[in-house]
Formats: sequence, C-alpha cells, structure tokens
Amino acid sequence: MSAMAAPVALIQGASRGLGLEFCKHILKNKSLAAVVATCRTPDGAAELRGLAGQHRGRLTVLKLDVNLEEDIREAAARVKENFGRVDLLVNSAAMLHPTGKGETSLRDVSAQGIISTLTTNTVGPLVMAKYFSPLLQKGGGAFGLQPSEKAKHHSGVIVNITAKVGSIGDNGLGGWYSYRMSKAALNMATRNLSIELGRSQPKVVCVSLHPGTVNTDLSRPYHRNVPNDKLFSAEHSVNCLMGIINSLSIEKTGKAYSWDGTELPW
Amino acid sequence: MSAMAAPVALIQGASRGLGLEFCKHILKNKSLAAVVATCRTPDGAAELRGLAGQHRGRLTVLKLDVNLEEDIREAAARVKENFGRVDLLVNSAAMLHPTGKGETSLRDVSAQGIISTLTTNTVGPLVMAKYFSPLLQKGGGAFGLQPSEKAKHHSGVIVNITAKVGSIGDNGLGGWYSYRMSKAALNMATRNLSIELGRSQPKVVCVSLHPGTVNTDLSRPYHRNVPNDKLFSAEHSVNCLMGIINSLSIEKTGKAYSWDGTELPW
Ligand SMILES: NC(=O)c1ccc[n+]([C@@H]2O[C@H](COP(=O)([O-])OP(=O)(O)OC[C@H]3O[C@@H](n4cnc5c(N)ncnc54)[C@H](OP(=O)(O)O)[C@@H]3O)[C@@H](O)[C@H]2O)c1
Ligand SMILES: NC(=O)c1ccc[n+]([C@@H]2O[C@H](COP(=O)([O-])OP(=O)(O)OC[C@H]3O[C@@H](n4cnc5c(N)ncnc54)[C@H](OP(=O)(O)O)[C@@H]3O)[C@@H](O)[C@H]2O)c1
Repeated sequence: MSAMAAPVALIQGASRGLGLEFCKHILKNKSLAAVVATCRTPDGAAELRGLAGQHRGRLTVLKLDVNLEEDIREAAARVKENFGRVDLLVNSAAMLHPTGKGETSLRDVSAQGIISTLTTNTVGPLVMAKYFSPLLQKGGGAFGLQPSEKAKHHSGVIVNITAKVGSIGDNGLGGWYSYRMSKAALNMATRNLSIELGRSQPKVVCVSLHPGTVNTDLSRPYHRNVPNDKLFSAEHSVNCLMGIINSLSIEKTGKAYSWDGTELPW
Repeated sequence: MSAMAAPVALIQGASRGLGLEFCKHILKNKSLAAVVATCRTPDGAAELRGLAGQHRGRLTVLKLDVNLEEDIREAAARVKENFGRVDLLVNSAAMLHPTGKGETSLRDVSAQGIISTLTTNTVGPLVMAKYFSPLLQKGGGAFGLQPSEKAKHHSGVIVNITAKVGSIGDNGLGGWYSYRMSKAALNMATRNLSIELGRSQPKVVCVSLHPGTVNTDLSRPYHRNVPNDKLFSAEHSVNCLMGIINSLSIEKTGKAYSWDGTELPW
C-alpha cells in the first residue's frame, strides 16, 4: 500500500436505500475516496448509474449478487486488480423475507423463506468478509480513528448493517422469525470476525450498526405504524452511521451500535 | 386431551448421541410416558431400533430428516393421529459443519457450508416447532412444574439443544463460524417461540439448553483438548438436562440455560 493511494470504500447492496445513500455520502464528504458500489443488477439501478455518471473516475459499479459466492470472488479479484486495497466495507443488502413482509406468527414460517433470508442477510456478508478481508488488511486505515499506539492501528473497517430487532436480549415482541434470526446470526459473524481480524496484524475493525427505522423500500409495509419523527430519511440515518464509523477504533470492535452510538445488547 | 392420556415426549435426532440418550432416560425414568423418536434413517439406527424392541408399545420410531419440511409435516400428522398430543419436544439433531470440523478461520468458510449447517441446526428446529406447536398446545403439561396459578399452567415444553459457543456475549475465541451462527440464530428462534407460545392459552414453554461438552460423535475431533472431568458422558449430560426440564415453568421460558442450571448470556 502506498501512502499516497486514495481511500477505497466498498458498499455492497448499493442499488437503493441505505447502500445508495452511503455512496452519495462518501462521494460528497470524503472527497479523496474512491467508491466501489456493488449490486445484483447494475442495469436496473438507474440512480446508482446516474451517480456514476456524475462522479466519473470516483465511483465504480460492479455486479455482485451476494447469494453467489462466485460473484463475490470475482468482484474481489476486480477490486484487487484495480485498487489493491479496501479501507471500508459496508454490507447493506438485506430483505425482511422473500414475501417482503416479516412473519407475524409461526403460521407464516417456511423452511424456504428462512433459508433465503439467511442466505442474503447473513451468509452473504460473511462470504464478503472472507474474500475482502485480505484487501482490508492492505487498507490505509482511512476510516475511523487511529489511537496513538501504533500496534493498535487498523487498516480497514467492516460494517455489517444489522437491526435492533436482531437483538435477542431486546426481543420483547416476537414475530419476524427469519429477519430476526438472520440478524442475530449476523451479529455472531461480526463478533467472530472482530476476533479473527483483531488478532492479525494489520487489524480490521468489525462492527454491526443499526440504522434506526428508515424510510426505504424494506420498511415500507410498516411505515404507517411508525411515528413521523421516528422514521428517518436515508440521508439522516447514513449521516449518523458515518459519524460512528468515523469514530471507530480497534477498542470498539466486535460490538453492535445503534445510530445514536449506544451499544445494543446481543 | 383426556386426563388419563399418557405423556408423550418427541425426541428429534434420536439415532445417536444425546437424542438417543434422551429416549433411554425417559423410557427408564418416566414410566408412564410414550416416546416418539425421529431420525433420518431408521434402518441405520441399530441402537434405537434395539431400544424399540425392548420397549414395544412405548417407543415409536419415525423417519424424519429435519432438512425436509415435508418429512416434518408428515411426522406431525402421524403423531396427531396416533397420540393427539405432545408434552415435550426436544430438538437435538445438529452438526458442527458438513466436514465434521468447525472452521478455524475465514479460509475455511464457504457459503454452502454455512447454509447446510444453518438448515439442519436452525431452520429444522423452527420448522419442527411450527408443525408440532398445535400438538404441544394439546399436551397435558407432564414435563416441568405447574405453578399454583392456573393461568400460568403450560401444556407443553420445547427444548432446543444449543451450545455455549452459540452465545455471542460469551464468544472470546472466535472460529466455528457456521456452528456458532447456527446456534445464535437458534437462540433467537427460542426467544421468538417463547413469546408467541407464551402469549397463547394453553402456553408452551420454550428454552435453549447447553449440554456441556459431551462424549459423542459431534465433539469427537476435539476430545483430546478437553480435560477428562469436563467431558461428560451422554448419560450424565441428559441427567442434568432432564433435571432442568423437570423444573421448568412459564416463568423460566425464553432463556438459555447450561447443564448446571445457570443462565447463559445471549
Ligand atoms: N429500512 C429500515 O428501517 C431498516 C431498519 C433496520 C435495519 N435495516 C437494514 O439496513 C440495510 C439496508 O436496507 P434498506 O432499508 O436500504 O433496504 P432496501 O431499500 O430495501 O434495499 C435493500 C437492498 O438490498 C439489495 N439486495 C437484496 N437482495 C440482494 C442480493 N441477493 N444480492 C445483492 N443485493 C441484494 C437490494 O438490491 P436490489 O435493488 O437488486 O433488489 C437493495 O439494494 C439492510 O441490512 C436492512 O436490514 C433497515
Ligand atoms: N457433544 C457436545 O459436546 C455438544 C456440545 C454442545 C452442544 N451439543 C448439541 O447437542 C445436540 C446433540 O448433538 P450430539 O452431541 O448428540 O451429536 P451426534 O452424536 O453427532 O448426533 C447428531 C445427531 O443429529 C442427527 N442429524 C444430523 N443431521 C440431521 C438431519 N438433517 N436430519 C435429522 N437428523 C440429523 C444425526 O443423525 P444421523 O445419525 O442420521 O447422522 C444424529 O442423530 C446438538 O444440537 C449439538 O449441537 C453437543
């Protein structure tokens, strides 16, 4: 890694919602950073392609279906070739359930529904970490804060977007079996990654972040039930989350944080 | 349900290890109970078939591959027809990983390995709960303690066999990605089930139980690293777990307990 190289942020699940907003935010506020945006159908992602047109040379769009290990391996090879490093990986893609609605009771549970949800929301982010961690270990540590002690510096940051409903301890209402289980398992992946990549030198910080309830397609079926001041715009949510990301260090690795910086129980 | 009907215990994953031992324990210590033992290949489960021979009329063996929703649906229909109820469901079947060894690092992680592990260890038990909860709601509450207050009585108990390494908060070592994630997600399923089935009348208690490190095929590759007095026999482990099960009530639902009765953190 060269000291002059520009920071690289990779946003997985960038066609819409929070993923797209992460791209916009970084392009606007981190003027030196290159952004790699992945999504499963670049041709269908009109807004992302428009953004790429406005930021030629800074925003690269890659095809990546997080359900296909082969796509992930190929994207990592492309990023390695073109950039040689990654400073920030955000895993944003997820679904509530293939039907678009979380299960209200056991009656709605099906093996295939749970497996699809786990595959996209949980397996995808972990397999991303597998293929991109070597590149994150080559990062320049451009995101987060570096403590004065050199041995505690980190080269990269992995952010898994989780959800408060994925907290087992906080679960008082039930329902949404597939989604809750996928995020609880994702939090375990975060914890495991933080241990494996916190032991290595250089270190990679890994956290789970909860964005709040955000006005996107994912939460659309439930917006009616959310008080207006609790339904964040994607812009506001990403502002908060980037504030947390910019303050991360290895001391904060392996935990789940909410948009306001408070730690979430497992 | 008739007051005279015998208690029914269903043990899922009964061909070997802890599942087989649960069958033996209940046949020996609960002389009134009928046991339904499920496994994916009854023809291969010699010890279980031997046990059925010794306990004719008390032990029924059913074919059930927990990866096949159709098998689960059919077994539930058979149990409904023959018994009309279930008092205890133990979900025991699980694997460390399709290779038999947990991942020591990200290098060993594959999408297919995680998905297989999640399907057997996590999706299976939840789909079991889906099809058997109507029968558990018809149970006579023969397992556990009934508080004096009638509204707090439970008709059935669901036990998901978890593992201490599935505790996110307790995870200090990392590794075993698939297995840890599968048990964390299973604990979320337990929590969700306890809420949905604790709200209904009659109530079903649902807990996760950690058996300790037990001398079975699952842990065999790691026995060398376990001090002798920490490696339980299946008999000892099931003795401890049945002690906990016999003391369960609705007040204790929705939690994870270790073999010694202590609560595990999520
Ligand atoms: N919105 C909320 O209230 C809320 C609350 C808590 C947590 N979250 C979390 O925030 C994250 C972002 O969600 P969002 O609100 O931005 O949702 P969204 O607007 O519905 O966007 C979901 C994104 O995931 C992508 N995706 C789905 N399956 C994929 C696959 N197999 N491969 C690649 N991409 C896939 C979609 O791509 P396509 O365009 O190709 O479909 C889309 O870009 C998720 O992890 C979600 O769980 C959201
Ligand atoms: N042993 C330990 O140290 C330990 C520690 C913590 C937790 N546990 C948990 O204890 C439980 C029992 O494990 P064990 O130690 O008794 O393991 P085991 O001796 O290896 O037995 C595993 C059982 O799971 C069954 N199984 C696997 N895949 C299945 C499928 N698709 N459908 C139906 N059955 C399937 C096996 O059936 P087949 O005979 O057909 O293969 C076998 O009966 C597991 O949940 C495990 O995670 C064990």
